[in-house]
Amino acid sequence: MHFFSSDFKLGILGGGQLGKMLLSETRKFDIQTYVLDPSEEAPCKIACNQFFKGNLMDYETVYEFGKKVDVLTVEIELVNLEALQKLESEGLQVYPSYQTLKRIQNKAIQKNVYTANQIPTAPFCRFESLADLKLALENQQINLPFVWKCTEFGYDGYGVKVVKAMNDLQNLPETECIAEQMVDFKKELAVMVCRNPSGEVVTYPVVEMEFHPEANQVEYVICPARIDAAIAEKAQQIALKVSEQFNHIGLLAVEMFQTQSDDILVNEVAPRPHNSGHYSIEASYTSQFENHLRAVLNLPLGDTASKVAGVMVNLVGEEGYEGQVVYQNIDKIMSISGVTPHIYGKKQTRPFRKMGHVTIINENMDEARKVAEIVKNQIKVISL
Amino acid sequence: MHFFSSDFKLGILGGGQLGKMLLSETRKFDIQTYVLDPSEEAPCKIACNQFFKGNLMDYETVYEFGKKVDVLTVEIELVNLEALQKLESEGLQVYPSYQTLKRIQNKAIQKNVYTANQIPTAPFCRFESLADLKLALENQQINLPFVWKCTEFGYDGYGVKVVKAMNDLQNLPETECIAEQMVDFKKELAVMVCRNPSGEVVTYPVVEMEFHPEANQVEYVICPARIDAAIAEKAQQIALKVSEQFNHIGLLAVEMFQTQSDDILVNEVAPRPHNSGHYSIEASYTSQFENHLRAVLNLPLGDTASKVAGVMVNLVGEEGYEGQVVYQNIDKIMSISGVTPHIYGKKQTRPFRKMGHVTIINENMDEARKVAEIVKNQIKVISL
Repeated sequence: MHFFSSDFKLGILGGGQLGKMLLSETRKFDIQTYVLDPSEEAPCKIACNQFFKGNLMDYETVYEFGKKVDVLTVEIELVNLEALQKLESEGLQVYPSYQTLKRIQNKAIQKNVYTANQIPTAPFCRFESLADLKLALENQQINLPFVWKCTEFGYDGYGVKVVKAMNDLQNLPETECIAEQMVDFKKELAVMVCRNPSGEVVTYPVVEMEFHPEANQVEYVICPARIDAAIAEKAQQIALKVSEQFNHIGLLAVEMFQTQSDDILVNEVAPRPHNSGHYSIEASYTSQFENHLRAVLNLPLGDTASKVAGVMVNLVGEEGYEGQVVYQNIDKIMSISGVTPHIYGKKQTRPFRKMGHVTIINENMDEARKVAEIVKNQIKVISL
Repeated sequence: MHFFSSDFKLGILGGGQLGKMLLSETRKFDIQTYVLDPSEEAPCKIACNQFFKGNLMDYETVYEFGKKVDVLTVEIELVNLEALQKLESEGLQVYPSYQTLKRIQNKAIQKNVYTANQIPTAPFCRFESLADLKLALENQQINLPFVWKCTEFGYDGYGVKVVKAMNDLQNLPETECIAEQMVDFKKELAVMVCRNPSGEVVTYPVVEMEFHPEANQVEYVICPARIDAAIAEKAQQIALKVSEQFNHIGLLAVEMFQTQSDDILVNEVAPRPHNSGHYSIEASYTSQFENHLRAVLNLPLGDTASKVAGVMVNLVGEEGYEGQVVYQNIDKIMSISGVTPHIYGKKQTRPFRKMGHVTIINENMDEARKVAEIVKNQIKVISL
């Protein structure tokens, strides 16, 4: 199969920033792409070969889109699974597969994969509904505090809530959910694993999410993580075991906790390029986006080693601003060596919306981390 | 002025591979682009915001295109200069400017800039026509051998010929030309200089073009050049002096000879991203394309240092093949660490057509050079 400058077509479900960065790689290799997204303003609308507007959760829409392409991949896991199953049964290569996505989309099923396969994860209970959870709490089958997660359609922190008192359960949806024991962790870590249909598997170095000391919000993704080699090795091995269980093709981001006693617990996975791998565009021999593309085309995977240390800062909409976006002080941060802004192309900002990210690279990790703080403090995503 | 996710429009004259790689940066920053190119099949057609088909040498076409944008730049220097002059007089920012391009487009004028400013270059004579050159040769005002160059519209080796005997003058066009003394050189070197309207100037490390021992064709561009520090410093200083004379905004590629006696002679310049800077996408803190974009928008220039050693191999159409392109063994070279192919998106190959390039990066230069040779020997650009 010839992919380069040929009639081959790669379909991408979802047209957000992850898709946009993937398109940068398809353009580099001159591989044709079709993109499906519900928004006419999708960041992917430019740089794909054909853009289709449609609902990613609608069976007919996804099925008809899939019929047009030679290989189908996703940049978001919230897509209609029945359509993928049907397309696969008709011979289409769908990466990640229906089977992989089915066991990831629902968090209760995902957690069961861990416990059934001796993969360390925080203890949890599944409930058919919020009412059932409340009953269990009254009957002291579960105890406060815990983390409530709705099992489906949670995304980017939505659908997750720390429950410390009964009051915290107010206004939560009545849907299926899990109650997960809270983890007292030192660090949140992640490992990107990439796998192609030939069975080649590579892992990126362990990265670390550094949190704001008060706001409890991820401020920096740091590669490599500042952890002991033994912990890093343990995290890599667990990520590989997780990867094997899900049998994914393409990227799998494995998010983990390093507990106070230096255990590694798997938090959750995403079967696609991931925020925790953005640093790789500038810092790695092969970016996560290029490796995802290589994987779904069954090309040899690229070197995941780093050329330099990398720190990533998310650019989210500032509180109190809504409307046409302006990136304040972007020229100031661009005057610092090793600083690269990525602007996702969303024209409208609103509080906490992911509008872009900035990568800081340096030979020296401490220097990169210092610059990241300067960047974080200077740039503001506001509105006109 | 806000450039990022705004109504600002950058115009690019020319839609070839240089423009395509520039668009990768405009997408990263979400900056709107309009592109003008004579071909509907231009590599830039995808990933720009609006594509216009038209003749770059036609006054009206270029002028009307320029009226639609806020800043105008080029990815090829063969464009209608009168239109640029008119647009500038009406207040449009044109980078490189009419004045810069005027002194570069015509090789006799370009050579005069060197000699008038004590910039070392090979001695030459200008002739109004081929007939005049022949007369001068008969009258022994010039001697064989020499290099014939037509003064205008030469590109990528077209319009240049080594003349060793009278016979070699057959079939040359009757146009204005120069006869340049042949340079017995050790190495061909290049320095990319970047300048923004605020007067900030940066230079990339000196690169070296390695030639095939028999075919006299550039095989590898190597960064950094394997030359003494003193020679590198001399080349940098001369490149800066050239840059100052042309007073360009954006990139200027300064091609030079290192003679047998270690003198540096300027060969020629190009006021735009250049083949000799392609390695920078993978190897440099800031790619030449990003820096060109930063410069024409008067943003701070990025760090030009290298993260790792880089070697670039051009992918040109194999002799004996014409038609729908196939990149043979591309999967084989992609299995080697640090190897990145760039496919320009030209669907039809023909002998010697520039179809792509491959960058090889490594911490170790010797290793990068070795891998480059493997790449060069494996990959072939053929047709179906």
